[in-house]
Amino acid sequence: MKKIAILGSTGSIGTQTLDIVQHAPEMFQVEAISAGYNRDKVIEQANQFQPKLISVATKELAEDVANQIPSHIKVLYGKEGLMEVAASTDADLLVSALVGSQGLKPTLAAIDAGKDIGLANKETLISAGHIVTEAVARKGVALLPIDSEHSAIFQCLNGEKRSQIAQITITASGGSFRDRTREELVGVTVEDALKHPNWSMGAKITIDSATMVNKGLEVMEAHWLFGLPYDQIHVLIHPESVIHSYIEFVDHSVIAQLGNPDMRVPIQYALTYPDRFTTPTTRLDLASIGKLHFREMDYTRFPCLRMAFESGRQSGTTPTVFNAANEIAVARFLRGEISFLQIEDIIAAALDKHESYANPPIERIFEQDEWARAFAASIQF
Amino acid sequence: MKKIAILGSTGSIGTQTLDIVQHAPEMFQVEAISAGYNRDKVIEQANQFQPKLISVATKELAEDVANQIPSHIKVLYGKEGLMEVAASTDADLLVSALVGSQGLKPTLAAIDAGKDIGLANKETLISAGHIVTEAVARKGVALLPIDSEHSAIFQCLNGEKRSQIAQITITASGGSFRDRTREELVGVTVEDALKHPNWSMGAKITIDSATMVNKGLEVMEAHWLFGLPYDQIHVLIHPESVIHSYIEFVDHSVIAQLGNPDMRVPIQYALTYPDRFTTPTTRLDLASIGKLHFREMDYTRFPCLRMAFESGRQSGTTPTVFNAANEIAVARFLRGEISFLQIEDIIAAALDKHESYANPPIERIFEQDEWARAFAASIQF
Repeated sequence: MKKIAILGSTGSIGTQTLDIVQHAPEMFQVEAISAGYNRDKVIEQANQFQPKLISVATKELAEDVANQIPSHIKVLYGKEGLMEVAASTDADLLVSALVGSQGLKPTLAAIDAGKDIGLANKETLISAGHIVTEAVARKGVALLPIDSEHSAIFQCLNGEKRSQIAQITITASGGSFRDRTREELVGVTVEDALKHPNWSMGAKITIDSATMVNKGLEVMEAHWLFGLPYDQIHVLIHPESVIHSYIEFVDHSVIAQLGNPDMRVPIQYALTYPDRFTTPTTRLDLASIGKLHFREMDYTRFPCLRMAFESGRQSGTTPTVFNAANEIAVARFLRGEISFLQIEDIIAAALDKHESYANPPIERIFEQDEWARAFAASIQF
Repeated sequence: MKKIAILGSTGSIGTQTLDIVQHAPEMFQVEAISAGYNRDKVIEQANQFQPKLISVATKELAEDVANQIPSHIKVLYGKEGLMEVAASTDADLLVSALVGSQGLKPTLAAIDAGKDIGLANKETLISAGHIVTEAVARKGVALLPIDSEHSAIFQCLNGEKRSQIAQITITASGGSFRDRTREELVGVTVEDALKHPNWSMGAKITIDSATMVNKGLEVMEAHWLFGLPYDQIHVLIHPESVIHSYIEFVDHSVIAQLGNPDMRVPIQYALTYPDRFTTPTTRLDLASIGKLHFREMDYTRFPCLRMAFESGRQSGTTPTVFNAANEIAVARFLRGEISFLQIEDIIAAALDKHESYANPPIERIFEQDEWARAFAASIQF
């Protein structure tokens, strides 16, 4: 019986993690969950999975929720609640699935508490890869990627040596606007942007797929997860998202991981690694799919990916600024304040204004994160 | 420095093995090679690689060759020569690349002598899988597949558990006639049949690709190599031969091995396993390839594959008869004695006439092998 805690239990990854648990209740015990403002869902989850501890966004919500669930479940709130869910329980593994940079501190706390990490929160590595990988090595915990691309690379590395990697290729569906030119992106609506062709995901990540920021964040995450320089990380457009990513080894043999687009496979793999068990997912049927397509990434069409590579290579606080500016820009786009193409304008302006600080300590990261958010929020068009 | 011996050094796999050695002379020492009748090539190989021992087809050829190479190289011939090349040297690994059932006895001798086997000779497992796998387990040697499909499965199994395999899929290009109907196969020429779309291989295996017998032999080989029942072995048509084969695990995650069609990658992997080194091959470029196609195998269009599955399931001496009848039928087709479609008629007639003998000892296998050859040679149309 593996004991798990989940940061972000009512989000897309969190609910799918609990779906896995529900299908294999003999294998997993949910120790703690954190949610934000989704009152009804967190109450339902608490009643169904009976964790020892839950955390929600605010004190008022915590008091409300506490009245709807068994009294033996402790209810906390806010940043302190996140830290307790991440690090204070008997969980063996933390599924870190908060959206954005708020996931960093609790994930570091869980590592320090000796817990393995199922990492769905990209920003943890992007902003603090140098701190996180050092802590992971020092504590000897496992850092298990949960998004499909990194799980693919992680699976392809089984039994292989990292030193014998020639290059990894992260595939990109191209997102909801992959077949539109830049001219055709002028004036696209939030509704259009949220129609992802292959994956059912949260709003933020769906927009990040359309801008290719998501792929840029994945490139930076891969850099830290697999210890590879940016020259060994390649991005390829593959509209069907069937080949989730692959490794080319020095002998030119390529090992790829494939499957239907269903996050429950990489989520479960992180929960059961190094073993595999049946999942409530559909089997890949290549004959029915018939064709797989591939084309080179276009860095002119997708300038955010170019900026991501540049930010990653510059390192220091630059990836933090890239990510924080994007978070605010996407939120502003989702609120209808700015146009789709102005997301990249905001990121570019923040990167341009920012002066990178090398090997930043964690407080410096948060400082730059806050600066980039304020700057991105202030830009008027 | 790994010491290797090669059975079939002047054939397609043998020459490519020596090409690998030539590109990494600091890694490999050639102890012994065997060739058939290709006088000039075996002389060239002996002079270039300076093995301690070579073997050719006949006594006359041995005497002739001996005069053309340094006197410290011992020259043998015939069946005894094959046995010496396979088993009598200091080689760590035998590349078993003879065509057809003549490879069985020397390969078993090498296993008994404690050598690892790089297996390109399919018939070794097809006729005597029960004997070979028992000997391999008893002697604790490694059985390293050299053809691209089994090497693919073998590579995809790295770090995984066989018990967690749901199914393996062996891909088939469809061979030189893949886009012809059965009606269009009437009267095809030897020349047409030898035009394989993707791979440059020997004549026998190219014909076997067109009839799908090759894929049938691979299915039986996979059964023994990976210890899988036939229900867990699937064949898929994939014209580009880029995905060389793949494993679906119980969690519906699929691990595939890809590459350009170049046998030197699986050959070198068998020589360097579990490590990988650079190869003199080209890198896979999926963006340039653009599209990969897949379609279900058609067992009506390719009855030889259906017969192979039936033979494998029947086991005993039936796979030997399937293979031996095919060898003679292909030889007769290449000599212009029979038509292309009569290859399958000969196999079907031999299987029909044969009564399978369960768990045959090796002499019984050879007896049935000879019977099937004589029977296949005697059929008149």
